[in-house]
Amino acid sequence: MKQVVENKCFGGRQLRFTHSSEVLDCDMHFSVYLPPRAETAPVPVLYWLSGLTCTDENFVAKAGAQQFAAREGVALVAPDTSPRGADVPDDPAGAYDFGLGAGFYVNATEPPWNRHYRMYDYVVDELPALLARALPLDNGRAGICGHSMGGHGALIIALKNPDRYRSVSAFAPICSPLNCPWGEKALGGYLGTDRRQWEANDTTALVRAATERLPILVDQGEADEFLAEQLRTELLVAASAEAQYPMEIRRQPGYDHSYFFIASFIGDHLRFHGQYLNK
Amino acid sequence: MKQVVENKCFGGRQLRFTHSSEVLDCDMHFSVYLPPRAETAPVPVLYWLSGLTCTDENFVAKAGAQQFAAREGVALVAPDTSPRGADVPDDPAGAYDFGLGAGFYVNATEPPWNRHYRMYDYVVDELPALLARALPLDNGRAGICGHSMGGHGALIIALKNPDRYRSVSAFAPICSPLNCPWGEKALGGYLGTDRRQWEANDTTALVRAATERLPILVDQGEADEFLAEQLRTELLVAASAEAQYPMEIRRQPGYDHSYFFIASFIGDHLRFHGQYLNK
Repeated sequence: MKQVVENKCFGGRQLRFTHSSEVLDCDMHFSVYLPPRAETAPVPVLYWLSGLTCTDENFVAKAGAQQFAAREGVALVAPDTSPRGADVPDDPAGAYDFGLGAGFYVNATEPPWNRHYRMYDYVVDELPALLARALPLDNGRAGICGHSMGGHGALIIALKNPDRYRSVSAFAPICSPLNCPWGEKALGGYLGTDRRQWEANDTTALVRAATERLPILVDQGEADEFLAEQLRTELLVAASAEAQYPMEIRRQPGYDHSYFFIASFIGDHLRFHGQYLNK
Repeated sequence: MKQVVENKCFGGRQLRFTHSSEVLDCDMHFSVYLPPRAETAPVPVLYWLSGLTCTDENFVAKAGAQQFAAREGVALVAPDTSPRGADVPDDPAGAYDFGLGAGFYVNATEPPWNRHYRMYDYVVDELPALLARALPLDNGRAGICGHSMGGHGALIIALKNPDRYRSVSAFAPICSPLNCPWGEKALGGYLGTDRRQWEANDTTALVRAATERLPILVDQGEADEFLAEQLRTELLVAASAEAQYPMEIRRQPGYDHSYFFIASFIGDHLRFHGQYLNK
């Protein structure tokens, strides 16, 4: 991996790297914020998964997370949202909700997507292993967080790997890709028509099947334009109740789907993760 | 003026407006953050002037200022950095440091610039008058702040109007356009070759001539790539000492010219202004 940008920020270092990903079979960028504490000892790490159309850079520039990461002594790792490059196939119509910028954090099984679109393995395995070798991170203390498609990614990844993450949180997550147009299109395209394969990538299904319990925090804006049709928080509320899986799901009056919503509550999320990551 | 965007942010309202500017003879956009306190009473206002290439939107998305404005109960007003539109002349070579995105907060006297490029009058007179009619702002309690070209703008505007602003601060300001390539090009183009006209728009000259004293805070990153040639903080330090004009000029080791630098210290600036605006 090669460092391409560095900016000092809240006493720490905001870094951007490029590397050749074996799992995704393409060159990728990702961003890392190292808090001041990383100068003297390995620090815990919070993975951030972004939503549709984003790269690693949106969160870095717009969320205002660094000040809270500096305070908690937690590194922030932001991967891109899909494989990238001229030979990576995209949605035939160039739609924003499939293909480039829309990897949905799954391992595609359908051609032509299955060659590059393996964001699940990239986020769970390849990226942490790469970072552990190169940066002062303690991957034994990891949390995961995300927004929208990335909230879905954070939740399914943590629920499928409760031994790897101490805490998980989400802003306006797609709660059930089985039950929304974004999910139908993405999982249908990447995983094929057998909906049983989708269930392994659906937060509500995973919550119902879970045997372990992770600390979970979800924030959802009540003025979010995607809430009713795409995000469907009520399905997560129901699954959580049915499975007796305790989680904090907060409804925030007046907030929409934007980074202004994320910025308003990212401090709460960093404090939430900090209490588990700094144990 | 017409509202075109609204996002809830830290309990307040992040707004964007468009209007037809008489002074600039074109349509303009600007952004306003209203803190929660504005729901019940007029609030003081902090004007933010951006740097080269920016619009009103960079500061809004990247500085993370809203949380501190919410805490201080201060509105943030961010104008654009130049007149805009198809009939507004631009640098003939399309350079980033003259013409569109580079108004330098002066009133141009040279054709063809003098028809539209009157950002000084726009920021000092037209915009505050417009806002006073439409929003719950108390312009009797105003401060001004900016970055780079906008730091220059904030300083010259406050120094020329000490009765209008209670406090002024700047991030990495162009301290003396009389003595740097950016300033030579911009003031030469907008104001012509008589350098005596430039002095009325040069912070170091205005500090030397000042009869009143405003609270001034300046932050300058020591790793700023423009410091030595364009910003020249040492000339402001010298002018301040020579004129016995007290101001706090802080050098921040390791910080560059980016919004990561601004974000790291915007909280300090809001607290600085807050103590004068909430008196």
